[in-house]
Amino acid sequence: MNKQSSAQTTALSAISPLNKGLGFLEQALEPEEISALGWNLLKEDLSLPCAVLYKDKLLHNLNWIQQFIDAYGVKLAPHGKTTMAPRLFQMQLEKGAWGITLATAQQTLVAYRHGVRRVLMANQLIGKQNMAIIAHLLEDSEFTYYCLVDSAAQIDQLGAFFAEWGERLQVLIELGVMGGRAGVRNDEQLQSVLTALARWSNSVTLCGVEMYEGVLHDEPAIRVFLKRAVEVTRKLAAEKRFQRAPILLSGAGSAWYDVVTEIFSEAGFGDAVEIVLRPGCYLTHDVGAYRVAQERILAHNPIARRMHSDLVPALHVWAYVQSMPEAGKAIISLGKRDAAFDAGLPTPALHFRPGDAAPKPTPANWSLTKMMDQHAYMKLDEQDDLRVGDMIGFDISHPCLTFDKWRVLPVLDEQYAVVDVVKTYF
Amino acid sequence: MNKQSSAQTTALSAISPLNKGLGFLEQALEPEEISALGWNLLKEDLSLPCAVLYKDKLLHNLNWIQQFIDAYGVKLAPHGKTTMAPRLFQMQLEKGAWGITLATAQQTLVAYRHGVRRVLMANQLIGKQNMAIIAHLLEDSEFTYYCLVDSAAQIDQLGAFFAEWGERLQVLIELGVMGGRAGVRNDEQLQSVLTALARWSNSVTLCGVEMYEGVLHDEPAIRVFLKRAVEVTRKLAAEKRFQRAPILLSGAGSAWYDVVTEIFSEAGFGDAVEIVLRPGCYLTHDVGAYRVAQERILAHNPIARRMHSDLVPALHVWAYVQSMPEAGKAIISLGKRDAAFDAGLPTPALHFRPGDAAPKPTPANWSLTKMMDQHAYMKLDEQDDLRVGDMIGFDISHPCLTFDKWRVLPVLDEQYAVVDVVKTYF
Repeated sequence: MNKQSSAQTTALSAISPLNKGLGFLEQALEPEEISALGWNLLKEDLSLPCAVLYKDKLLHNLNWIQQFIDAYGVKLAPHGKTTMAPRLFQMQLEKGAWGITLATAQQTLVAYRHGVRRVLMANQLIGKQNMAIIAHLLEDSEFTYYCLVDSAAQIDQLGAFFAEWGERLQVLIELGVMGGRAGVRNDEQLQSVLTALARWSNSVTLCGVEMYEGVLHDEPAIRVFLKRAVEVTRKLAAEKRFQRAPILLSGAGSAWYDVVTEIFSEAGFGDAVEIVLRPGCYLTHDVGAYRVAQERILAHNPIARRMHSDLVPALHVWAYVQSMPEAGKAIISLGKRDAAFDAGLPTPALHFRPGDAAPKPTPANWSLTKMMDQHAYMKLDEQDDLRVGDMIGFDISHPCLTFDKWRVLPVLDEQYAVVDVVKTYF
Repeated sequence: MNKQSSAQTTALSAISPLNKGLGFLEQALEPEEISALGWNLLKEDLSLPCAVLYKDKLLHNLNWIQQFIDAYGVKLAPHGKTTMAPRLFQMQLEKGAWGITLATAQQTLVAYRHGVRRVLMANQLIGKQNMAIIAHLLEDSEFTYYCLVDSAAQIDQLGAFFAEWGERLQVLIELGVMGGRAGVRNDEQLQSVLTALARWSNSVTLCGVEMYEGVLHDEPAIRVFLKRAVEVTRKLAAEKRFQRAPILLSGAGSAWYDVVTEIFSEAGFGDAVEIVLRPGCYLTHDVGAYRVAQERILAHNPIARRMHSDLVPALHVWAYVQSMPEAGKAIISLGKRDAAFDAGLPTPALHFRPGDAAPKPTPANWSLTKMMDQHAYMKLDEQDDLRVGDMIGFDISHPCLTFDKWRVLPVLDEQYAVVDVVKTYF
């Protein structure tokens, strides 16, 4: 499988000429060939709308989070579902990530076929074909995979399937809270899970405890939940329930990773427990919910404060002004097909008029008021200097639902030249 | 270019093994090879979540709309942005569509490379690279393309670009309404557009009038807008402004195509005007806004009433129950990554327990209450018969924003066997 997968990786890397957000291509090219074309956003070499990544800002964010993680001596398994971009996974792994977190069997397959060899699937593995995908990957002894369990019914299905395949599946028990998502709520459910695990001890191996604090929104409740995860881990360790040393203890989305790190680190497990954090949005950051979250982190976390810098937005969606049919209103060639709209609309950040030397920050009064499938309305003042054919670079809120609108994202240098192309696999 | 594009079409048809919603594949296969594998949704041969199309229902909808269109003697250019699936474009063209409507230069490129030779781009063409894409395609004399203009600024940009390329661009004037999207609002803007067109008569050719009534929501206002489009067409025809015979007059999204057809047909243009309608959502239909719209059409339109049938939902998203951690709540492996959520959440339609003979309709009390990136919450009653590992087929609202979540959609027969795979190009 290794040989085959590496052959496929080569073929897979070609960039189709049919993707939006590129220049005109006669045929598929490798990212390196595209970089060599000398495309520049400001020369209108890209077909807008176009989502771009800024290389210097990506590198800054990669360094920032790894510095934070290293300062605490914990491990980082960035959530790959945010970008689903194997080239970005590689950057994260090269920078020091312990592994990649993913949400589904298909995402795991994509990562594996691009060389990722340690995956924490922070989700239940459910269904015959999803199990089959994982079972195929586990034939490679170099591949390490963990997924979550939270019910006897699910464990019985996993146990039977992997027993038949003659494989061992490594799992973490997911803890959850009332009103939240998956995860065991109480001791009775926990006992039922432990009993089921005992039934399938030959095919399902308990390696640790997992939780996702992001289903809660106030810090006191999050702290209670985190302490429960610590206590459950301590109790199950005392009962010798885990078949992995060190035990895995994992939490943290992109909004509360500081509190998770703090409470898990303070638990005093030492080498007995490997703490794995899973933020994913730090890589591109945003100007919505994650900026707000990051401001709280910068204000309160001593390590973050000492770093004297912060995450920066590394993703823009660029689009044209296509019509200005009414005073104070511009129609932008950017729609729900191009950027997330579920946690705030994109925010105008840069204004560029083809022929000018460089983009300028947009005035504060420009804002999107509505998005349709392929268009947005932008409000401005009647006297503002904006024309049909001008380009606007938008900051976004919610990178996850922006990345999944794009199959390729050009990576730009500080002069807006295309220096790489990142492919996504949603 | 023809030769090159046909070679690329062949290569393009292969289905990557890295897509979600398929079974495990060692390597890329052609759709025909996948059909031959004997996969069946009910045997859990597909990795859920999975968006599927039902072949019989697609064919029914294709026939229904074409029958409606033919009864009025108008033309159909279905909006391809809904599905961006060239295999579906081909079905639409084979059934009698006049051409395919699209929204962007990249969408036009995708359609062209898959054999579509008449495109109405119901949008402004803006930006150097978008113009370059179209200019490349226009090198093929068999390719016919129309796009919209609504401002002198835009026409000057188009005129200069296509004059330099030595090509003629065919355009329609877009009419718009105050508070709406693009399109000329008033006579002053119209005159300005006509003056600009006169400046560029060697490179920009006026072929007709276009409008999109879907920016309005009440029928009386829509009727006023439609009558204005008729009057503008009549006036410009009298002034001999059009360089195409017959003149093109185009309107209609998926919600008001009956009223558009009625008013355009009643205008009495005869052979002088070719009426082109652009609904796109009829193909898969939905159970949200378009069902409501279709109910109005069935109640009021005499042709639709006489047809004694209706559009049917032809797209389901299937997902597993992955956890049932609280009474009356199921966690479903279906998220914002998998289905539209901007016009109502997906609606449970079918319930299947692996091993059973066939799916059953879901009880009326089951409904989604929340969607996250990769999960949804489903509300049910505590005593309802649902288990972890059960499959739910969901109806959707807003096909456009569901299709763009999927790179491939298996097509199923009435026994849920995979008989084709449709690829999308967003």
